Amino acid sequence: MTPELLQHQYPNGLVLLAEPMPHVQSAAFSFLIPAGAAFEPAELPGSASMLGEWLIRGAGERDSRDLLSALDELGVSHAEGAQTIHSCISAASLGRNLLPALAIFADVVRRPAFDDDEVDSIRALCLQSLRSLEDDPGSKAITELRRRHFADPWGRSPIGTVEGVTAAAPDDLRSLFRRSYRPDGAILGVAGAFDWEAVRDEVGRLFGDWDAGQPSPVLERPTGPARSHLGQETQQTQIALAFPSVPVNHPDYYRARAAAAILGGYTSARLFTEVREKRGLCYSVFASYEAFKDRAAVICYAGTAPERAQQTLDVTLEEIRRLASGGVDREELDMMRAGLKSALVMQQESSMSRSASLASDWYHLGRVRPIDEVAAALDALTPEQVGAFASGMDLDAMTILTLGPEPLQLG
Amino acid sequence: MTPELLQHQYPNGLVLLAEPMPHVQSAAFSFLIPAGAAFEPAELPGSASMLGEWLIRGAGERDSRDLLSALDELGVSHAEGAQTIHSCISAASLGRNLLPALAIFADVVRRPAFDDDEVDSIRALCLQSLRSLEDDPGSKAITELRRRHFADPWGRSPIGTVEGVTAAAPDDLRSLFRRSYRPDGAILGVAGAFDWEAVRDEVGRLFGDWDAGQPSPVLERPTGPARSHLGQETQQTQIALAFPSVPVNHPDYYRARAAAAILGGYTSARLFTEVREKRGLCYSVFASYEAFKDRAAVICYAGTAPERAQQTLDVTLEEIRRLASGGVDREELDMMRAGLKSALVMQQESSMSRSASLASDWYHLGRVRPIDEVAAALDALTPEQVGAFASGMDLDAMTILTLGPEPLQLG
Repeated sequence: MTPELLQHQYPNGLVLLAEPMPHVQSAAFSFLIPAGAAFEPAELPGSASMLGEWLIRGAGERDSRDLLSALDELGVSHAEGAQTIHSCISAASLGRNLLPALAIFADVVRRPAFDDDEVDSIRALCLQSLRSLEDDPGSKAITELRRRHFADPWGRSPIGTVEGVTAAAPDDLRSLFRRSYRPDGAILGVAGAFDWEAVRDEVGRLFGDWDAGQPSPVLERPTGPARSHLGQETQQTQIALAFPSVPVNHPDYYRARAAAAILGGYTSARLFTEVREKRGLCYSVFASYEAFKDRAAVICYAGTAPERAQQTLDVTLEEIRRLASGGVDREELDMMRAGLKSALVMQQESSMSRSASLASDWYHLGRVRPIDEVAAALDALTPEQVGAFASGMDLDAMTILTLGPEPLQLG
Repeated sequence: MTPELLQHQYPNGLVLLAEPMPHVQSAAFSFLIPAGAAFEPAELPGSASMLGEWLIRGAGERDSRDLLSALDELGVSHAEGAQTIHSCISAASLGRNLLPALAIFADVVRRPAFDDDEVDSIRALCLQSLRSLEDDPGSKAITELRRRHFADPWGRSPIGTVEGVTAAAPDDLRSLFRRSYRPDGAILGVAGAFDWEAVRDEVGRLFGDWDAGQPSPVLERPTGPARSHLGQETQQTQIALAFPSVPVNHPDYYRARAAAAILGGYTSARLFTEVREKRGLCYSVFASYEAFKDRAAVICYAGTAPERAQQTLDVTLEEIRRLASGGVDREELDMMRAGLKSALVMQQESSMSRSASLASDWYHLGRVRPIDEVAAALDALTPEQVGAFASGMDLDAMTILTLGPEPLQLG
């Protein structure tokens, strides 16, 4: 059963991707707009998040409260927010409410009220969010790891900094809006119960006359330090590390995903077995693959008691080196494959997951991969291919960050 | 479209509930066993979680690693763990892997290896988990609130205490296993792609000769203090409060759910509007309904900067009092209804969510509510009914807990 993919590109660059799911009543969309933290002025980190919050404080004919009420009346479950590259709006509801929900969000991204009186309350919220990161050492460690491992602006967190959030004035946010909310590079993925022609025409009516404007250049800066310790009086020591992988459009992509999964992507994966199961060193440990269009990394994380932290780090590094030097077993490859294939099927059954996947595929590849193509690529993998890929991983480019009461010996 | 519900009760008390989803390829199950923290010896808090972890460290013919590998080979995404009342196993995979996955978990709950050598590693993990709660002040505040608001053992957290986890010996865990892992009171919910007769027969083969044993009595103890402050040098002050509601089997259940949702269950709900939107007092604020079979509560939470905490608490209490005294609008009721109905439809489209809902309905009601019945009950609600329910809420029985550098004035 290969689902049908419908797609349309409007003259201003906006891409619409739609996959009907004949047996569901829900419909969902994921709208990616290239207006994430990467496009902030370097001196205003956090301004993309502030802008995203300002947009939903009233738009079109509706004030802030009317706007949220209108979505609640449609029973729309929704989330908005800046990520590193994109500002993302995702929403799901009954299929019959899809077009009314899209019309509300067309106001949000094109006709925000931009009431200056809202900005102080938004600034206070964003400062709260930064403070709550201080009370969440695991998330803080991964946030700070990304800042160091990826070159700026790819390492940026949308949460920003106290300085940036404090400094951003209403006119800065308006200027960011004019530069970054634009149809060229915007991707709208829709999945579930809908009528294709009605969606295509309504999206054209809502967004067809949205001006493309000028793209804003992204200035790449060097990466941060490869070894860091952040001293903080936490109960647990946080260990986060990253090393480069290949992006989704790379011929070795499936080998890279397999290598990361075998390291720490399922419950009997190597890190889980060696760190958690055999030695009881920590409760949470994982490895995950993260990608931008032109770069990617494997991120590993463990949180543990300070007296077990050195051993946890040592075992984690040892497992990464063993993956790079020792190859992988057929049994491991089978488990990785079974897990990813089950996940694919379950993604196909959720309008929300599927709409997100359509938009993500387009960002990474400029096309949507049919599920059958992904399954065939997974089936074709051999242990030799994955082992060869792993032996070429650039572990010298590894970034390690620890957070806790005492620094560790960084191998 | 009313889905078909299939059910069977085995002579030993085990209940099987199954809902076929004709157009999906996945199948999921949720298995509730009355072996949660409520059944722990009072001096061994945390032992139910330790036991749950021990069960998956090898069972039947498989050692710890073989067991997790067998599930990974089937592509089963799974989670196990003690909750307050139940020990819960949930799993999802392709439909054809449902019966093999059930057979593995039949070993887990009936024939665990119970290798004493595993217990120290399990104890270390559970102590890590307790430590990580110290680094997560929001979760800690809600955990400590439940301990005070609900009478013991309903207020217990499966995370336990350092003393309990340190003291629990292998024989204590074996004894808890014999008392609490039992078919009477166990509920198995299945949803997705499966053949009913094959499932019914295989569950009978796997669990039909499981002995019921003796039920262990639950001893109710008084609730904790109604007002508490936990001093901790956090960046944010955590505010958690609870007041009684009615359980799912109560005639006023839908009125109670509506009242809680109007307070803080959707994005334009009262707490969100007054605390977050209008005043920018905090990033996270919500109210949620939580129920056991014979008791329930509304839990409210906000995390905010210490200098804004007093106002956040005052506004939250004011909104609760306004709900109790001022009634609700038809517009609010419509929004609550639209949100719950969308959520119902989306739950119907996910085999994982649906299997959990089947098991939960049986626990609360001894039957599964057809979706149409829930929708009709929501449609029948009037603002007058919800307002009348809210005016009867017992706010004198409110529990308030704060956590942070300074105590607050507790209204």
